[in-house]
Amino acid sequence: MPVDEMSFRFGQHLIKPSVVFLKTELSFALVNRKPVVPGHVLVCPLRPVERFCDLRPDEVADLFQATQRVGTVIEKHFHGTSLTFSMQDGPEAGQTVKMVFHSCETGVQWHDLMIRLECNGVISRSDWSAMA
Amino acid sequence: MPVDEMSFRFGQHLIKPSVVFLKTELSFALVNRKPVVPGHVLVCPLRPVERFCDLRPDEVADLFQATQRVGTVIEKHFHGTSLTFSMQDGPEAGQTVKMVFHSCETGVQWHDLMIRLECNGVISRSDWSAMA
Repeated sequence: MPVDEMSFRFGQHLIKPSVVFLKTELSFALVNRKPVVPGHVLVCPLRPVERFCDLRPDEVADLFQATQRVGTVIEKHFHGTSLTFSMQDGPEAGQTVKMVFHSCETGVQWHDLMIRLECNGVISRSDWSAMA
Repeated sequence: MPVDEMSFRFGQHLIKPSVVFLKTELSFALVNRKPVVPGHVLVCPLRPVERFCDLRPDEVADLFQATQRVGTVIEKHFHGTSLTFSMQDGPEAGQTVKMVFHSCETGVQWHDLMIRLECNGVISRSDWSAMA
């Protein structure tokens, strides 16, 4: 099924297919239209889970193999030299995620699993527009 | 081979088997005797690589399946409610790692891949001693 005919669940939200740039067998990756830093993208399991421990082994493998692919593309695109990956897993960590990624959406509980990738490089904010 | 008969390479360092608490087919996990925060452990590929993109798909799968196992144990041990995973991948990110994990070892270039797990919970520093 083409990406643009699907909807993706991300916690309590349905993600617009237009921001999903990769779909694998068990994972998907999306851009953030208002990224905190350039190269800020998310990689998520297709099956919504609240905690990392809830993922099956094949989902773990797919998720991080997808993350590896995405990281390589992000770094190249932004002419970066390094990547920072982070995964906030659980309520306390989720609150941080909410602040970082959903500062405009107060009151949303946000525990679902995602991986944040950021590209560490000397790049301008405007570079981002090519991916958003 | 028993863990205590092996040596583990972690960047330019050889890791004492006594601090390695998990070995899988392609990965290993170690504790830090001077953790920055309680529950601070590292999970690494057995094959030394400099960048995440250098790992084979089977190594990626094994590394994060091991990370999932370790995270579950860490959270339970420290009576935490959440986990934070981070991976600094590359020279710029590696410098951060060097500061965080190797503040006593100045002049060491540290690019090798590792995943940092921290447990987010209200726990005391003394709790750590049970794992170190």
